[in-house]
Amino acid sequence: MTSDKQRILILGGGFAGVYTAMYLEQGMFGFERHKYEISLVSLENYMVFQPFLPEVISGTIEMMHVITPIRRLAKRTNLHTREIQKIDLARKIVTLGPEFQPKTKELPFDHLVIALGSRLNYDIVPGMREHAIPFKYLGDALRLRNVIVQVLEEADNEDDPVERQRLLTFIVGGGGFSGVECVAELHDFLRSALPAYRSLKMSEVRVILLQSADRILPELGESLAAYAQTILTKRGIEIRLNTRLKSVTANGAVIQAKGSNGEEVVAARVVVATVPSAPHRLVEQLPFEKDKNGRVIVLPEINVPGQSHVWMLGDCAAVPQPDGIMSPPTAQHALRQAKTCADNILATLRGTPLKRFSFTGLGKLASLGHYSAVAEVMGIKLRGFIAWLFWRAIYLTKFPGFDRKLRIFTDWFLDEFLPRDITEVRIFRPESVTREHFHTGEPVFDQGDVGDKVYVVVKGEADVIFNGTTVATLKHGEVFGEMALISDHSRSAALRAKTPLDLISISREAFEQLVTHLPGVKASMDEVLQKHLMAAKAIEAEVRDQVTLGRMD
Amino acid sequence: MTSDKQRILILGGGFAGVYTAMYLEQGMFGFERHKYEISLVSLENYMVFQPFLPEVISGTIEMMHVITPIRRLAKRTNLHTREIQKIDLARKIVTLGPEFQPKTKELPFDHLVIALGSRLNYDIVPGMREHAIPFKYLGDALRLRNVIVQVLEEADNEDDPVERQRLLTFIVGGGGFSGVECVAELHDFLRSALPAYRSLKMSEVRVILLQSADRILPELGESLAAYAQTILTKRGIEIRLNTRLKSVTANGAVIQAKGSNGEEVVAARVVVATVPSAPHRLVEQLPFEKDKNGRVIVLPEINVPGQSHVWMLGDCAAVPQPDGIMSPPTAQHALRQAKTCADNILATLRGTPLKRFSFTGLGKLASLGHYSAVAEVMGIKLRGFIAWLFWRAIYLTKFPGFDRKLRIFTDWFLDEFLPRDITEVRIFRPESVTREHFHTGEPVFDQGDVGDKVYVVVKGEADVIFNGTTVATLKHGEVFGEMALISDHSRSAALRAKTPLDLISISREAFEQLVTHLPGVKASMDEVLQKHLMAAKAIEAEVRDQVTLGRMD
Repeated sequence: MTSDKQRILILGGGFAGVYTAMYLEQGMFGFERHKYEISLVSLENYMVFQPFLPEVISGTIEMMHVITPIRRLAKRTNLHTREIQKIDLARKIVTLGPEFQPKTKELPFDHLVIALGSRLNYDIVPGMREHAIPFKYLGDALRLRNVIVQVLEEADNEDDPVERQRLLTFIVGGGGFSGVECVAELHDFLRSALPAYRSLKMSEVRVILLQSADRILPELGESLAAYAQTILTKRGIEIRLNTRLKSVTANGAVIQAKGSNGEEVVAARVVVATVPSAPHRLVEQLPFEKDKNGRVIVLPEINVPGQSHVWMLGDCAAVPQPDGIMSPPTAQHALRQAKTCADNILATLRGTPLKRFSFTGLGKLASLGHYSAVAEVMGIKLRGFIAWLFWRAIYLTKFPGFDRKLRIFTDWFLDEFLPRDITEVRIFRPESVTREHFHTGEPVFDQGDVGDKVYVVVKGEADVIFNGTTVATLKHGEVFGEMALISDHSRSAALRAKTPLDLISISREAFEQLVTHLPGVKASMDEVLQKHLMAAKAIEAEVRDQVTLGRMD
Repeated sequence: MTSDKQRILILGGGFAGVYTAMYLEQGMFGFERHKYEISLVSLENYMVFQPFLPEVISGTIEMMHVITPIRRLAKRTNLHTREIQKIDLARKIVTLGPEFQPKTKELPFDHLVIALGSRLNYDIVPGMREHAIPFKYLGDALRLRNVIVQVLEEADNEDDPVERQRLLTFIVGGGGFSGVECVAELHDFLRSALPAYRSLKMSEVRVILLQSADRILPELGESLAAYAQTILTKRGIEIRLNTRLKSVTANGAVIQAKGSNGEEVVAARVVVATVPSAPHRLVEQLPFEKDKNGRVIVLPEINVPGQSHVWMLGDCAAVPQPDGIMSPPTAQHALRQAKTCADNILATLRGTPLKRFSFTGLGKLASLGHYSAVAEVMGIKLRGFIAWLFWRAIYLTKFPGFDRKLRIFTDWFLDEFLPRDITEVRIFRPESVTREHFHTGEPVFDQGDVGDKVYVVVKGEADVIFNGTTVATLKHGEVFGEMALISDHSRSAALRAKTPLDLISISREAFEQLVTHLPGVKASMDEVLQKHLMAAKAIEAEVRDQVTLGRMD
């Protein structure tokens, strides 16, 4: 912590960041350890071994086994597990957000390594942020698994055929590596879990893969992709090519075929998003030249042009291969970039010459689950069981740390004999103040439903429907649903989206807190309530009149 | 699902409920399966094997292995995983809360088995609900483990000795079985995890067990309790007898010795609550006679007096043993009660005579972690390693299902060789609208802190302090902290509890949503902001005057 040390600060706890720390530790001579200090910032204190993440869905590998504590990999590195708030290149300071105390923390650096990866871009598809389950981080895999079990539990007791089909429909958006592996493991899990449910049959289950391009796995050659498509289709997975996700709601997805104007509403409780990706928020703000995907263009030495002390690698950087093509966002590339980066930082510190990144990729592998995979390794194409064995062998070898290798091997071994886990751990509470999206015509709630939320219209319009008749239309800023909460009754009218509709929903508990304690809320809510009560009375009177008139006819 | 079947409805997915279902299934003759229908309601779709729950904290058993899917244990039972909203004894209907759709569900019954267990009673200790981590359910164990890792991560980089000690202090409330096993495993985990943290030493760690009685483990004989106390004290755990938790805040606990008026504030980030317990909310509402602990007094036949079709067992019922003493709330009693209950339900349906509950307990076991335990079995007292081996053997045998036995055995085996897991999975997001408690004199925030929340005073008073001087005192309904949020700046003044203080805190995100969209909020917040800005200006002017005056002196 003394300031006479050269401080190397790494941002990001993925392959790129963690391996840079590891290679730096390995590359240092003993006497250099007192001269150079390595720090790494990662919100999570573990590195996820991404290739195994899909297997967390099916449960063939246990959740905690696809991750490794960063401290055990980079033992001489200071780890900071906080959010990064700001990168100040001029002052050479990175600011971290607060943790237990509402205080930020400043980390000065001499060399900065930025390996912040990418994030899912929710902004393109309406409702995706609110209702789709992303598939990128470990928490996502856990959440997805829990939701799948939750819908199976509900479906098993559901007599209404429409709701039952909605519960048993699963949509995965994105036909690249991530989407294909995700849909394969999801299907695998359903197949092995279903026998535990008394009334469910696999023939009732619909699993849909959406791909906007004209084939899946564009990362692979055409023949392997075709093979993968045949395998998945045979298992019963519906692959919809040239089709994109237009919007997501709590009740399903709206999809659209390329070149068509027509939309299709697919009722589903589970919609998984694996695309599209966008650069990390902090990378977006960096004043460096970027390619069309938002990745910062770096030199073959891994540093940013004109910045000899700022290094960028992994999915947030466009690192040129020797053949001039930019490195794809894979683990094998991140690993080699980390080596080059670590070597060049040490070379800069020592005043020796830098070297250039010189890797063009060994091959490509995608698991299809259930003893099958496709692989393209040094020009050789593999598929089926042999590719699957190869896939497992390669990645198990690559997994850092003997203890995790043993744990995963044990998981795979036991999985051959023991039944799949179908437990749902209810740890994901819905937010008390949150957004919801509805497509045109979708019910927000029906007359007679349980009233457990208050809604405020943010965008679009909603019809209030009483006994089948539209009695009012709500617009921006209008509140609805407080009556059922205050009187503890069921919904006295239905609410239905007249246009694509964005709402804020406030839980009963939060609403009660706000009405009781936040100034201004009680008065304005009383006003809203009075207005609604009067409207309800007027409608009732009208209905009574109509009934009376009807009798007189 | 046809109504000519006799419907047995079980509420509760703990030992008592699940074993009742299992014994019912086992006890039925083949032809009876079409006559009787068993349903079980449990919010979680798994049963927790409570004796192993503390080991989830230390990580010797993996989280998912201490639970078993209920569907795999009771294969011919309909499982409903929803919250129970209402028990209507007169109409013989149980109403379940909504899940995906905002609709309730009604389950009619002919026989009702109530096995809802107990819950932690947060109402007695101020701040416990808001700031203590309960230790009762699986989610609690996971949350506790995550928080422990989180404080270690922070402590490793903390230079301020006061905050560092606060981060490294762990308080467990309750010296019964649950509290003792919890504190032992917590200490075990710290000891094995600490070597991974570069700057932390075990000598800095404080682990405190609070017990309001004059000895720990009141469930056991005095000599074994004394032995346990010696073992735990030797390991470095501070046992505070005759001491109770008076209040809990985000920064620590206020404790008080029996018979003393003085309070002691112990700074800590982790406070675990294992007591006190109270009856389930639904049991509280039942019109049956209860004992002083709120348990419903039942007949030795396990049914409620005067109700031949309502059965109650487990922790929510006072079931008399043959010796007249009420059964203690242990798994072994729940299991035997379930057998009697199932047999008597079948006997009632068949019209054969009922039998009485005839079990008085086999013994008592408490693990002290790290190869040590205490046991009292059929009059024989065991302690140390032999008791520990006995503990593991007994409970492994009792764990239902071969697959879980094998998984746990594998966990124990691998734990002997492999390092403990120190990963923290950040899945617990703080609520956007929540309550916070502060004791007298405690800072809510300091001048210059990051402003990430708005506060509303619910109860008590808070001083606004600017440059060391109290400039205002806030009371019920007053808002504070919106200035830093709106201007995106740091706190311009400090806020400190003048009395015990209850606040509502609203996150930046939720506050922005509410101000933008909820009618009335913007206007009243503008008013508050204007008032605060004017006050700030007045204070600034005053400070300037004082400085000027000071110069003239």
